[in-house]
Amino acid sequence: MYQQLKDTMRIINDRPIGIFDSGIGGLTVVKAIIDLLPNEDIVYFGDTARVPYGNKSKETIIKYSIQNTKFLLQHKIKLLVVACNTSSSYAIPMLKKMFKNLKIVEVVTPGARAAVEYTKNYKIGVIGTKATIKSKSYIKAIKKICNKAKIFCQPTPLFVPLIEEGWIDKLQLINSDYYQTINHENILRQLSAEYLAPLKNFGIDVLVLGCTHYPAIKNIIQDIIGKNVTVVDSSLETAKEVKKILEENKLCKFRNNKPKYKFFVSDNPESFKKIGSLLLGQEIKYVKKVKIE
Amino acid sequence: MYQQLKDTMRIINDRPIGIFDSGIGGLTVVKAIIDLLPNEDIVYFGDTARVPYGNKSKETIIKYSIQNTKFLLQHKIKLLVVACNTSSSYAIPMLKKMFKNLKIVEVVTPGARAAVEYTKNYKIGVIGTKATIKSKSYIKAIKKICNKAKIFCQPTPLFVPLIEEGWIDKLQLINSDYYQTINHENILRQLSAEYLAPLKNFGIDVLVLGCTHYPAIKNIIQDIIGKNVTVVDSSLETAKEVKKILEENKLCKFRNNKPKYKFFVSDNPESFKKIGSLLLGQEIKYVKKVKIE
Repeated sequence: MYQQLKDTMRIINDRPIGIFDSGIGGLTVVKAIIDLLPNEDIVYFGDTARVPYGNKSKETIIKYSIQNTKFLLQHKIKLLVVACNTSSSYAIPMLKKMFKNLKIVEVVTPGARAAVEYTKNYKIGVIGTKATIKSKSYIKAIKKICNKAKIFCQPTPLFVPLIEEGWIDKLQLINSDYYQTINHENILRQLSAEYLAPLKNFGIDVLVLGCTHYPAIKNIIQDIIGKNVTVVDSSLETAKEVKKILEENKLCKFRNNKPKYKFFVSDNPESFKKIGSLLLGQEIKYVKKVKIE
Repeated sequence: MYQQLKDTMRIINDRPIGIFDSGIGGLTVVKAIIDLLPNEDIVYFGDTARVPYGNKSKETIIKYSIQNTKFLLQHKIKLLVVACNTSSSYAIPMLKKMFKNLKIVEVVTPGARAAVEYTKNYKIGVIGTKATIKSKSYIKAIKKICNKAKIFCQPTPLFVPLIEEGWIDKLQLINSDYYQTINHENILRQLSAEYLAPLKNFGIDVLVLGCTHYPAIKNIIQDIIGKNVTVVDSSLETAKEVKKILEENKLCKFRNNKPKYKFFVSDNPESFKKIGSLLLGQEIKYVKKVKIE
């Protein structure tokens, strides 16, 4: 009986972590999870046919998030990471309602928690897609932890298309032969300067990267916002949360074999492979295109 | 009998022209059609939930194009304009096969024809989305008319996201209170300079705007490529083609009432209204969100 129970547990524990994002952005979460939990198996779905989510309506975002979750459930995941701030901002209540037995980690709360931890003057800046900012999800999450915090939000809608094109900061391109011009760096800097100017004026001392794509240009953002501002990487904070939940629930993988990473996209696997490998910091060898509807 | 036939014709002639695009870009075609055919009714569908098409795969583009056509057919259109170069590059054979009795005008051939007409040195440049350039549709269309032409193609994938954000050139913003910073103009110029440099080096004397979004930044493109290069606006050439086909087939509208324009989108009608009004040069008052699947 005990052995039987142990075997069942073993089967559940050895299941993969499921992660979805609108595109390649969630790979920054995957990277952070691999660093913290190098033994775990991962199944990733990037909805590259329908990226970006950030300028879509609430109903559309919820619909896509449900479809993505159903796809990952086919892969018998033990925990779901919604590695997309836009989905995290709108779809979590519905996902929790529809998939009652599924452990779900989203990316907003971990970032909000870290922001409150790091701030000294209680002026916190948040950047994200239009939809994420419009949802006020960060304001709600931060206020819930620390009511006296003042939160300044700024939509930065063009960062996702630029990053999906492979415009990421130079430091992350070291050891890569990816072609990127000085002009790209200049344009990213100008755009960042324009987007971040209002937040600078407010005198924030913490800036939350409220989109999992943005860690790809973290160095440029840090440079523009200034070294006195702590930049919170919500991907990293989310990975810490995943580790905590797996440990608390005794759900860490038993087997000690080489971890398996599976990548699925709804379109353009070749482009995902190329730019995704840069974001992940290791080569993505196999990506499968699947139909999501 | 004759009267009956005349009545039936009248009903067909008084039907609207149907137009679809991946987003707001096709409105530059609508604008050109309104200028040339001010009496015609128009039904427009912008697939704003799934924009951009330009980095999607061939199969996805064909699937979406069929769905969009089926939607417009519900509005009893007399002619379909595929106002999206990406769809025009991939989906036309399938649309013609599936909708045999429908008159279909696409945007590639009219632009190709104009390019051959204007070139003197037979060096023609084409800019478009990744998918349009990859399809070689312009090379095929131009070579078919003029085999000795040399065609230089350049994908310019970031123009669509920028234009969908309302970054359009200043001349088109006159009399508008739309907020746009000097930085936007600078970034558009830098990006254009980078994208167009290889074409300049080839010594082209004609540049085809192979995407219906691009007329929104025609002035900047003309300025960067230089006044010795003729810029071909495929939206304008397409409108001329629509006029020709309606006249040849005696399909022009009979009634002389005020024309009706109906706009449908798959997401975010408010944003479409705001930025679309700039592109159309007149206020879009009513936009309806519809489900496309």
